Amino acid sequence: MTGEWFAAGIEYLGVFACAVSGFRMAAAKRYDIFGAAVIGFATAVGGGTLRDVLIDRPVFWMQSPNYLVCTMASFLFYILFRRQVVKFGETILLFDTLGLAMFNMIGIKAALGSGCGMLVAVIMGVVTGSAGGVIRDLLTQQPPLIFQKSELYAVACLLGGATYAAGVALGFHDIAVQIAAILVVIGVRTLSHARNVTLPYAP
Amino acid sequence: MTGEWFAAGIEYLGVFACAVSGFRMAAAKRYDIFGAAVIGFATAVGGGTLRDVLIDRPVFWMQSPNYLVCTMASFLFYILFRRQVVKFGETILLFDTLGLAMFNMIGIKAALGSGCGMLVAVIMGVVTGSAGGVIRDLLTQQPPLIFQKSELYAVACLLGGATYAAGVALGFHDIAVQIAAILVVIGVRTLSHARNVTLPYAP
Amino acid sequence: MTGEWFAAGIEYLGVFACAVSGFRMAAAKRYDIFGAAVIGFATAVGGGTLRDVLIDRPVFWMQSPNYLVCTMASFLFYILFRRQVVKFGETILLFDTLGLAMFNMIGIKAALGSGCGMLVAVIMGVVTGSAGGVIRDLLTQQPPLIFQKSELYAVACLLGGATYAAGVALGFHDIAVQIAAILVVIGVRTLSHARNVTLPYAP
Repeated sequence: MTGEWFAAGIEYLGVFACAVSGFRMAAAKRYDIFGAAVIGFATAVGGGTLRDVLIDRPVFWMQSPNYLVCTMASFLFYILFRRQVVKFGETILLFDTLGLAMFNMIGIKAALGSGCGMLVAVIMGVVTGSAGGVIRDLLTQQPPLIFQKSELYAVACLLGGATYAAGVALGFHDIAVQIAAILVVIGVRTLSHARNVTLPYAP
Repeated sequence: MTGEWFAAGIEYLGVFACAVSGFRMAAAKRYDIFGAAVIGFATAVGGGTLRDVLIDRPVFWMQSPNYLVCTMASFLFYILFRRQVVKFGETILLFDTLGLAMFNMIGIKAALGSGCGMLVAVIMGVVTGSAGGVIRDLLTQQPPLIFQKSELYAVACLLGGATYAAGVALGFHDIAVQIAAILVVIGVRTLSHARNVTLPYAP
Repeated sequence: MTGEWFAAGIEYLGVFACAVSGFRMAAAKRYDIFGAAVIGFATAVGGGTLRDVLIDRPVFWMQSPNYLVCTMASFLFYILFRRQVVKFGETILLFDTLGLAMFNMIGIKAALGSGCGMLVAVIMGVVTGSAGGVIRDLLTQQPPLIFQKSELYAVACLLGGATYAAGVALGFHDIAVQIAAILVVIGVRTLSHARNVTLPYAP
């Protein structure tokens, strides 16, 4: 029970971090406040929405108002404290990393729960973690950040997913394997950020 | 019965107005006639299509050929009379405003009919009214008009949806509340156009 | 049985040709190898995915790992032999044309199998054949090639679909009509490429 609350708390920190990245991009493009609110929400829930549409499952944010409320609260918070938000960029990065790891795991479990195989589930983890940012970039006319030589973002999800798949195949306890997968995502993303590790250009 | 025909007529005027905005943007981008036809159709039915996919309901334009036929007739009409169409821009704006109000209401009712709550239904009204234009702008490489300091377009839908939600909560007769919501959308959009009211920039 | 294997072989050649067009566009945009792999996959399966979402059918590439494996094999092949791939552009064009004809027919049959009418089925054939390229162009920030005065690509699908619809209406044997529709797509696309036939600009 405490575990569930803890997981939900981390998920909402991830929603906050994603939404803030959307608000900032919209402001940089001189969009209006409606545009910023929509793009923040699309960044936060876009990945999970695409996943739910692909695996034909009720769209998660329509089942509970929490995600919409959390995004709107994030918008208010961002408007009031945006100077501090920008200054504490490293804290946002931490939320973003925790959120990525949690989104990835939620995506994997959602796909498995809908009867998908492990390969598709790992892909749905990546989609849940990454597609929101692609939607944000499409709506603000940027080349998708995640396809460029930036940090290992999607790759962190892929390695986390591979860890989960391997752990399950080896018969370890599910909770332990989930925690391992989450730690792999956090570790890969943090290390790649710290050491500036990127993927090579497409040949 | 007459009411249904009347509502359908207004809906098709909205399809016409949306489609024309797509044809014109495609022509401005020097796309070919296939591109213009597709973008016109996507502008007219894109919002309702996204709504139907999100609430997992058969896509409306696949259930009846009317929307496709209406778009193709609009294309022919536009090709033959485009000088007049451009000249009577205010008439198109009227059709667009009527269509927006009708699309919004159709979206709300469709969502409620699929078991969504009122909050999600109001959002689906906005999606039905606005997402087609966003798809048009993505396909023609423009920053989405609706996210910029333009007229109150999505906000008109939101206020119309709020009116409907309030009226239903207060127990008024459904048809009366629908008409009130439609008038609110028309009023807000018309006033914001006349007085040049816009939302503030995202901070 | 042999016919099925033959059809599947042509389909995978089409996947290869589509994926290569995605890899090349991603490389031209200086995306990284993850971006290229995703865009290649999205180009190859995007049309069929949109079709399956629209007709509310399980997404085809989630039911079988073949498409993902085929795309990744294509990526490896492309990385190793990309000079030859570019040199044998006409061979790729052949694969692309065969794939287009096959994708179109698969889309039509999938839609009919899901209970759609013939008009919607013909449109779903065009979507299956063309939408992947539109997604590729959106993700690489290009105006969609298919909406511009390029070869008759979508029109080839439309004419193939019309051939199929006419043949079925006239009561011919289904396999014969399918083969006729496939030949029409191949013929129209090949002729339009050879003679440089294009559609007129949107007025």
